[in-house]
Amino acid sequence: MIKRTLVHETWGDHAALLARGQTDTVGSVGVVVPQVVDIATPTTPLVLQYGATLEHVAVAYETYGELNSQGDNAILICHALTGSAHAAGAHDKQQVPGWWDPLIGPGKPIDSNEYFVISSNVLGGCYGSTGPSSINPVSGRPYRLSFPRYTIRDMVMVQKRLLDKLGVTSLKAVIGGSMGGMQVLEWAAMYPEQVRSIIPIGIGARHSAWAIGLNEVARRAITSDPNWQNGNYPPEQQPDAGLGLARAIAMLSYRSLDSLEAKFGRERVSASRDLLGVSFEIESYLSYQGVKLVQRFDANTYLYITRAMDDYDLAEGRGRLAEVLAKMTMPALVMGIDSDVLYPEQEQKQLVEILPSAEYARICSPHGHDAFLIEFPQLAVRLRRFLKAVT
Amino acid sequence: MIKRTLVHETWGDHAALLARGQTDTVGSVGVVVPQVVDIATPTTPLVLQYGATLEHVAVAYETYGELNSQGDNAILICHALTGSAHAAGAHDKQQVPGWWDPLIGPGKPIDSNEYFVISSNVLGGCYGSTGPSSINPVSGRPYRLSFPRYTIRDMVMVQKRLLDKLGVTSLKAVIGGSMGGMQVLEWAAMYPEQVRSIIPIGIGARHSAWAIGLNEVARRAITSDPNWQNGNYPPEQQPDAGLGLARAIAMLSYRSLDSLEAKFGRERVSASRDLLGVSFEIESYLSYQGVKLVQRFDANTYLYITRAMDDYDLAEGRGRLAEVLAKMTMPALVMGIDSDVLYPEQEQKQLVEILPSAEYARICSPHGHDAFLIEFPQLAVRLRRFLKAVT
Repeated sequence: MIKRTLVHETWGDHAALLARGQTDTVGSVGVVVPQVVDIATPTTPLVLQYGATLEHVAVAYETYGELNSQGDNAILICHALTGSAHAAGAHDKQQVPGWWDPLIGPGKPIDSNEYFVISSNVLGGCYGSTGPSSINPVSGRPYRLSFPRYTIRDMVMVQKRLLDKLGVTSLKAVIGGSMGGMQVLEWAAMYPEQVRSIIPIGIGARHSAWAIGLNEVARRAITSDPNWQNGNYPPEQQPDAGLGLARAIAMLSYRSLDSLEAKFGRERVSASRDLLGVSFEIESYLSYQGVKLVQRFDANTYLYITRAMDDYDLAEGRGRLAEVLAKMTMPALVMGIDSDVLYPEQEQKQLVEILPSAEYARICSPHGHDAFLIEFPQLAVRLRRFLKAVT
Repeated sequence: MIKRTLVHETWGDHAALLARGQTDTVGSVGVVVPQVVDIATPTTPLVLQYGATLEHVAVAYETYGELNSQGDNAILICHALTGSAHAAGAHDKQQVPGWWDPLIGPGKPIDSNEYFVISSNVLGGCYGSTGPSSINPVSGRPYRLSFPRYTIRDMVMVQKRLLDKLGVTSLKAVIGGSMGGMQVLEWAAMYPEQVRSIIPIGIGARHSAWAIGLNEVARRAITSDPNWQNGNYPPEQQPDAGLGLARAIAMLSYRSLDSLEAKFGRERVSASRDLLGVSFEIESYLSYQGVKLVQRFDANTYLYITRAMDDYDLAEGRGRLAEVLAKMTMPALVMGIDSDVLYPEQEQKQLVEILPSAEYARICSPHGHDAFLIEFPQLAVRLRRFLKAVT
């Protein structure tokens, strides 16, 4: 464990904390071994929201820290669209730290010395949990488009089964940003008696037309690629152009005009005036982001998960939204990002206005929606304070 | 000519005007005959900014009103990316009013009783002016990708030649939104002695990384479509999917979260949970916008014009931006739209801060960038007042 002063930018509370000479103890969970468990069997099948049944469902997950004897010191971390269970520490082979490593670990705000932290790949994902790219045990071939449509609620139901297997009786907190935040809010609606606090970040109560539209053009980029082959591409020959373009479109919505302007402006990679060449740094960046995603993510899975996001509506089938939110009486820390153009602050403020025990924390950042994966000092101070107060 | 009270929404100055009982006289320029003129010949070729030479350049244009004997009552209207010369009135066959018809005509703010109004299709367009879809007179076949790259400055140079042909000695105003605004500002930089006032709307001094990125993903949508055939598609067999997707992406940036939410929200067109079907109204809308554009616009031209927009930088080759703007001493009415996420108000405010004789007018609208094609009452009152004061 390394003790050091938190690296930070001089915004808000955190700067004030540091100005008072307070420092943060930051350690790593170290090497993490990913695990997989089956949460459905032919005798305990998973019945999805839209009616389909799955008799075999693997869930890939990681845990950090130890569950106490009461089973109630658990914190669930929920990942976003292209995320995985690998939230903290490093794997044996590839020493890539988890996507929220600065926040999870011994002495960190989500303190693995105190809490049993669980992070799992969502149902229908492509990082070890059963999904469209998994082998259908009946046919012996990948599901691909024969995989049933699933929803955020289905993801949460699967997480619930995982927690039951692990012996978790009560969650101190459910935490997540973006699609992770959708799961957080569904947890509070589906299993309120097991959730002692919620921390949804950069998300609202339902997917807006704007967000649906952005997902839809991304899906069309994939399905328009002839290499997609109606979903039947071989695993080693993805629709690279389509999935890469989908990612490029999404990246623009994850950032902001100001952050892209500061980072790239009108810098050129080439003086060439080739109509089809790469002229500007921003073009090169978007292309690179696409290439990176193609190497790590499955195109069909992208279609399914974005559909699950688009279908997300906390009130659906539950009555009026205000009534649904009013029932979520556990303490809530709702975080929003001032430059988020995808899920703007107005969506988080709507939650805060109606949730009975909510406080709002603004993340000040030029980085847009992605700030929940970037602004660790600001997230850290809010998480630490809030979690300490949760009983 | 019909005298009626302007249809309006209750925003700002205009509502106040109407509250005082003032009405607006609104007429139509009636049936307009599109015209075409050659502005380059082998002896007077057009040499483009990047060095290429065109020996034949047709320009399609329309005029409304009469040029006075001094040739100085002219107003030039500049169109946006997918626009045309058809700004006002109606054509014989198709009774579609021009894209700024509510603002141009007898008694309207851009008053054809007083002014000689000129609107031309840009160089490199696909509405009658010479461009990638035109026949190359040397080969007898369409230029397609053999057409040279052109810039906003080239578009303006062509407009200058058109005005010279028409006998215009001085422009009372140059007016345009979006890419039209780029032309307006280039006019002020290239021919300041001929421009008595400028009205750029919803545009800044250079294309941002954000705007370039959006154009780039749109271009990739087109070039990824196999029907694009490296630009060699037959005119009757466009890359429909690619061009449609490019338009869908662009439409999201032309609107705003609020306007799409108000118009579509989470309304569904179908209860089907088909992975690949159309679920939400917003998807249907974006698809429809794509289909409409495919019917009226050329895919290669989309690639060229978006490149011209991306290359737009008022300061390029002219020194520091502040110095370039400081030389534009004519009165300027800079208009911005409060919900514009593509060219946000900060870009217009930068212009206003530096331009020596600029005033700023905010268009209050939920409609985002496209408000310059929607919020006619607000545009009308600002245009009328400003133009009356220009000598």
